[in-house]
Amino acid sequence: MYSVDFSYLDSKLDGIWDEVLSGSRFIQSIRAGTVTIPLFALYMLETYQYTKHNARNQALVGVRATGVPHKYTSYCFKHAREETGHEDMALKDVRALGFPVPAPDALRALPATETLIAYLYWISFQGNPIQRLGYSFWAERSYEYINPLIHDLRKALSLQEKQLSFFIAHAGVDEKHAAEVKEMISSCCKDSDDFYDICRVMETSLRLTGQVLVDVHAEYERLCRGEGGQYAFLLEQAGSRTVGA
Amino acid sequence: MYSVDFSYLDSKLDGIWDEVLSGSRFIQSIRAGTVTIPLFALYMLETYQYTKHNARNQALVGVRATGVPHKYTSYCFKHAREETGHEDMALKDVRALGFPVPAPDALRALPATETLIAYLYWISFQGNPIQRLGYSFWAERSYEYINPLIHDLRKALSLQEKQLSFFIAHAGVDEKHAAEVKEMISSCCKDSDDFYDICRVMETSLRLTGQVLVDVHAEYERLCRGEGGQYAFLLEQAGSRTVGA
Amino acid sequence: MYSVDFSYLDSKLDGIWDEVLSGSRFIQSIRAGTVTIPLFALYMLETYQYTKHNARNQALVGVRATGVPHKYTSYCFKHAREETGHEDMALKDVRALGFPVPAPDALRALPATETLIAYLYWISFQGNPIQRLGYSFWAERSYEYINPLIHDLRKALSLQEKQLSFFIAHAGVDEKHAAEVKEMISSCCKDSDDFYDICRVMETSLRLTGQVLVDVHAEYERLCRGEGGQYAFLLEQAGSRTVGA
Amino acid sequence: MYSVDFSYLDSKLDGIWDEVLSGSRFIQSIRAGTVTIPLFALYMLETYQYTKHNARNQALVGVRATGVPHKYTSYCFKHAREETGHEDMALKDVRALGFPVPAPDALRALPATETLIAYLYWISFQGNPIQRLGYSFWAERSYEYINPLIHDLRKALSLQEKQLSFFIAHAGVDEKHAAEVKEMISSCCKDSDDFYDICRVMETSLRLTGQVLVDVHAEYERLCRGEGGQYAFLLEQAGSRTVGA
Repeated sequence: MYSVDFSYLDSKLDGIWDEVLSGSRFIQSIRAGTVTIPLFALYMLETYQYTKHNARNQALVGVRATGVPHKYTSYCFKHAREETGHEDMALKDVRALGFPVPAPDALRALPATETLIAYLYWISFQGNPIQRLGYSFWAERSYEYINPLIHDLRKALSLQEKQLSFFIAHAGVDEKHAAEVKEMISSCCKDSDDFYDICRVMETSLRLTGQVLVDVHAEYERLCRGEGGQYAFLLEQAGSRTVGA
Repeated sequence: MYSVDFSYLDSKLDGIWDEVLSGSRFIQSIRAGTVTIPLFALYMLETYQYTKHNARNQALVGVRATGVPHKYTSYCFKHAREETGHEDMALKDVRALGFPVPAPDALRALPATETLIAYLYWISFQGNPIQRLGYSFWAERSYEYINPLIHDLRKALSLQEKQLSFFIAHAGVDEKHAAEVKEMISSCCKDSDDFYDICRVMETSLRLTGQVLVDVHAEYERLCRGEGGQYAFLLEQAGSRTVGA
Repeated sequence: MYSVDFSYLDSKLDGIWDEVLSGSRFIQSIRAGTVTIPLFALYMLETYQYTKHNARNQALVGVRATGVPHKYTSYCFKHAREETGHEDMALKDVRALGFPVPAPDALRALPATETLIAYLYWISFQGNPIQRLGYSFWAERSYEYINPLIHDLRKALSLQEKQLSFFIAHAGVDEKHAAEVKEMISSCCKDSDDFYDICRVMETSLRLTGQVLVDVHAEYERLCRGEGGQYAFLLEQAGSRTVGA
Repeated sequence: MYSVDFSYLDSKLDGIWDEVLSGSRFIQSIRAGTVTIPLFALYMLETYQYTKHNARNQALVGVRATGVPHKYTSYCFKHAREETGHEDMALKDVRALGFPVPAPDALRALPATETLIAYLYWISFQGNPIQRLGYSFWAERSYEYINPLIHDLRKALSLQEKQLSFFIAHAGVDEKHAAEVKEMISSCCKDSDDFYDICRVMETSLRLTGQVLVDVHAEYERLCRGEGGQYAFLLEQAGSRTVGA
């Protein structure tokens, strides 16, 4: 029986998270306490965009997978079910920040977010059916890396719990999910090819998520320079929001 | 709020079941007590074929559906999970009947069975996302029609419970499922167009299932005429089976 | 090199065509000269329905096929291109028969037609990539069987060429196509498994097309009994049409 | 009728090409004459990877597109046919450079290349059916930007025509293609939403291609540092190649 080298995955992950976080001006602004409500809201709206697809591409693995244990197919559908509708939490948080967002589906994902979505469908639809576990492996454990940032964010922006429900809800659930993912990797990963495929998806999907952070900040700067775009309302409403507060 | 006319569905269903059952020589042989073990095994192997796809096309609805309530997406994934691996029960029953079936995946579905599978993917992949409920509506309640037949079959062939696990397991679970389907139809069916789409899929998928019964019997007759085919082993082993019993 | 037994395919085909044509009351009415304009128009509207999908499922083979010769992929795209838009001819003929059909896309395919469409996507999307050649094999040569019927139809209904453009156009093109299909089968069919898959799709798709003929006549009889439905306009307008002629 | 602002697309394109080319150390090495045969071969093997998918995702647009003019569907299939098998040219060039590449399909695309492939399927499978024209718009005209680089490359590495067949063949064909794409954009782009979608895909797909250039160079540097990987053979064989030359 193949024994999965989780410590290799862990150390790889540490390195990429470091690269992702240190390369992100959005993250730097959180750590420095200079982050703003509109910047955070913009990030949450992009989170809304890709979260909308997560349950769907997760289930897609089960739809097309043949030659995998029923246990894995079953996991895909169970996990898909648990993720269904989570995007609404992201949206609720944005609304609790003071932005009504009357027509969220009219908003378009930024290019980096759309690229991440495209990649997740691709690795779910073809290739090694278990490779998507590489995405879940880091995503379900991201709270180890994100929690300190949430703490800083909360302090910097004086946020209430109901404005952070997406992260708070996930932090709780994901510990259980992370254990399930690890167990699923242990039982589905049969050789070094499987391990390579999982590792590869882990790395690429995390880097693409890092690119979302970069795009979010670039879009925010564009807004601040007055160049408009679909998120212009975040600055306009932020003004009125402050006045109204 | 649109009120679903379930009594219309019920009476439609009664009529089509009647048409399906009275048009099937396989069913007639069960009622007359002339059914044989190889004929029943052949039917169960075709059941194995389409059951392999049921969880997958059920989940496909959730994967591609947008603009439906999360509740429905969630139902699709939950139901898909519950159906995962059910084909193994059909196969186990065939084995318990005395046929080892060493390579079940080398067997090909009969044309009518493949057509049913194709249709279920098609109505899951496109069209009104809730239309597949029309299939579930009759499938989850088929035990009302099938139970008397199972009784006759059991008597005619002196079958034990472990040779009928597929039907026995479903009879129990499906009562609960049938109630869920009805509730889901009530809450997702918003107008007469939705109702029409559900009704249409109900009718077509039941008639295509009826065609499976016809093909199963025709294939069995082909075997009895010594024309061979992939199921020839059912007659050969049936002989040795009797001797060995 | 594997040598394809085309005479086997031909004789199989003869048998199934015979079965299909003799089992169809629509065909009988053509032969007997009792066919009516509304019945023929109803058939052409169903032809419109499945023809809309033919280019698309043909191209789908090329999209998903890997491990096939480029020559075959190229053939799929070329053939798809040639079929694009052919449904418009079917519709034009119906209009030339005196039925304006203002919103053709609001019409729904009859169950048998939808089943045929579903099956063609299924065999194009999965399984042996060359199996769809079994459909093309009979479809491109159907004029051998259909031409005498077109002749009878024309005579019975005093049809002009512009009311039969779909069949007249295909009769010309399809001779060339039939030769291409044969050549493609010869070069792609590498063993008896390939041959079996092609043969199977040939048989099943022709029988499902036969079922379309059955459904067309049943729907027509429903109309004549005054039971309405989406095609009711064919009888209403047929009346006014005659008056206007 | 909507008039497409091609000069806007052109100037956008100029800016992104500039960004892409100036941000690529691979391009810099070509301009400086320090590029090596293994580096160029590595690039061509990645070109092989995504080119394998181009005809297929192009045809996919035609398969799923409804509500577009037949002319556009027809264009998709025609263009797909013309692109079929082009990856073989890229592979032939690598072989002509002295690398036999016995099992090209065992090679895996680099993450940036896989991301580009995933994105192209995504924008072909869903969203505005005409948006993929934004990719064709720059891809078919890339020779304006690439030809000077090919010139430098040829000089730096003393390449023969048969080692550059991929680029030489495309340079000829693509002028015609570029005109077709422009005409297709003019006739399919009906409003500013369509224009936005085309523009967006143009920008994102070119930037993702730029990322391929970055990854290619990073992978090459990894090789030079002796860190191995699937492309290690390029350095090993390059040695023997020089000796043998």
